[in-house]
Amino acid sequence: MKPTERLKLLVAYDGRPFRGWQSQATNDAVQDFVEAAFKKIVGERVVVQGSGRTDAGVHALGQVAHATVPKGHLLLAKWLAALNANLPPEIRIMRVQRAADDFHSRFHAKGKRYTYRIYNGPCMHPLEIGRAWYLPGRLDLDVLRAGAKLLAGRHDFAAFAANRGKPDPDTVRTIHRIVVTGRSPLVTLHFEGDGFLYKMVRLLTGTLVRCAQGRDPLSIIEGFLAHPLRKKTQFAAPAEGLYLAKVLY
Amino acid sequence: MKPTERLKLLVAYDGRPFRGWQSQATNDAVQDFVEAAFKKIVGERVVVQGSGRTDAGVHALGQVAHATVPKGHLLLAKWLAALNANLPPEIRIMRVQRAADDFHSRFHAKGKRYTYRIYNGPCMHPLEIGRAWYLPGRLDLDVLRAGAKLLAGRHDFAAFAANRGKPDPDTVRTIHRIVVTGRSPLVTLHFEGDGFLYKMVRLLTGTLVRCAQGRDPLSIIEGFLAHPLRKKTQFAAPAEGLYLAKVLY
Repeated sequence: MKPTERLKLLVAYDGRPFRGWQSQATNDAVQDFVEAAFKKIVGERVVVQGSGRTDAGVHALGQVAHATVPKGHLLLAKWLAALNANLPPEIRIMRVQRAADDFHSRFHAKGKRYTYRIYNGPCMHPLEIGRAWYLPGRLDLDVLRAGAKLLAGRHDFAAFAANRGKPDPDTVRTIHRIVVTGRSPLVTLHFEGDGFLYKMVRLLTGTLVRCAQGRDPLSIIEGFLAHPLRKKTQFAAPAEGLYLAKVLY
Repeated sequence: MKPTERLKLLVAYDGRPFRGWQSQATNDAVQDFVEAAFKKIVGERVVVQGSGRTDAGVHALGQVAHATVPKGHLLLAKWLAALNANLPPEIRIMRVQRAADDFHSRFHAKGKRYTYRIYNGPCMHPLEIGRAWYLPGRLDLDVLRAGAKLLAGRHDFAAFAANRGKPDPDTVRTIHRIVVTGRSPLVTLHFEGDGFLYKMVRLLTGTLVRCAQGRDPLSIIEGFLAHPLRKKTQFAAPAEGLYLAKVLY
């Protein structure tokens, strides 16, 4: 067997042109493009494993992935430019580091930070198209903050998970904090937790927004947390406002 | 003559899809689209006069324009939605106010604020494409600030004006301040002055950046200001980093 080494990649992307992070048969996911860049450089298939999937349209400021490459194929300092030269401009490798041979971007992640941007004005700002959720009308930031407080902590978040065929066996997660910054028109939610279920950040955001719009009472959140299997929240915020900000190790 | 009233518009746009603000024979300037929206609503041609031109690719957060419309054609509160319904999403009317009959967006402007965004990192961030000038490598913010200080004040800025056939007869302007905020990778220049010559903000930015990169000494700026007609600066920063932030009245 040829000797190999493991690289840890910090990846940023504009989610709009891609069908999410995870490799697709259609080859238009971010992972497909990064793997194609490696193949161009190395001459053989390199599997790129990300810390988790992001949906189509979701952006990343700090996705993390790892890849195993032939040892010494390129000097470490050369990988960044070589990969970026083989990627579309909407995907950039922001940093390449050498990692331990057993480093795993997904299994070793201790937590994640997401941000969700909302544009709450009388009309959608032209420079926010595809980058924020446009919400006209009333949005009570105090209610948003009160709801965020209810959600923080260790809970069974089954009510905030989209099923992909079968439900996740373990739906208990810890949200360390949800912080609301800015004020209308631009409001940002910052989520940090030890892990998030499928579509969980979008479902949390959608539910919080319903309350902040006065359409649902905050007690609905307490109900979802107290009886996680009884019903599910219906409202997922759209992908375009969501950013995978940082993976914590 | 039918009675008329004057509207003052606050306009935001993403500069990328348009050939600048000023009406073009090709009908693809921002002004063309706003005039077409008025025509759709009013049924006849309405001239929309902006506070000044912006070049192709330059963005606006707060362009101001005025238009004269048949009195009472729409309630004031209805204009915003009516105009936006007839505009592409990359152009939004952010506010409509009634103005005095002699209000003139250009002649009555007392000053302008522009911002210029620079992305100074090892590679261009995917979410900054078309929204900032990508400058890799050294960029000394102390030099940027020192150069900004030299430029502030009342000067003959002829060396920082692009000729459009003939030079501007009066090239004396007052720059109230140039403030540098942020730090690499994202650095923003904020310009405020009583007026700016054609391409002046881009030429100022380009010249400041040359100094901050160590390619030119700061004394070159003093030379341009002391002998404005002897030579011109060569370096215009690209349109994509420039934003017309506010027109002052």
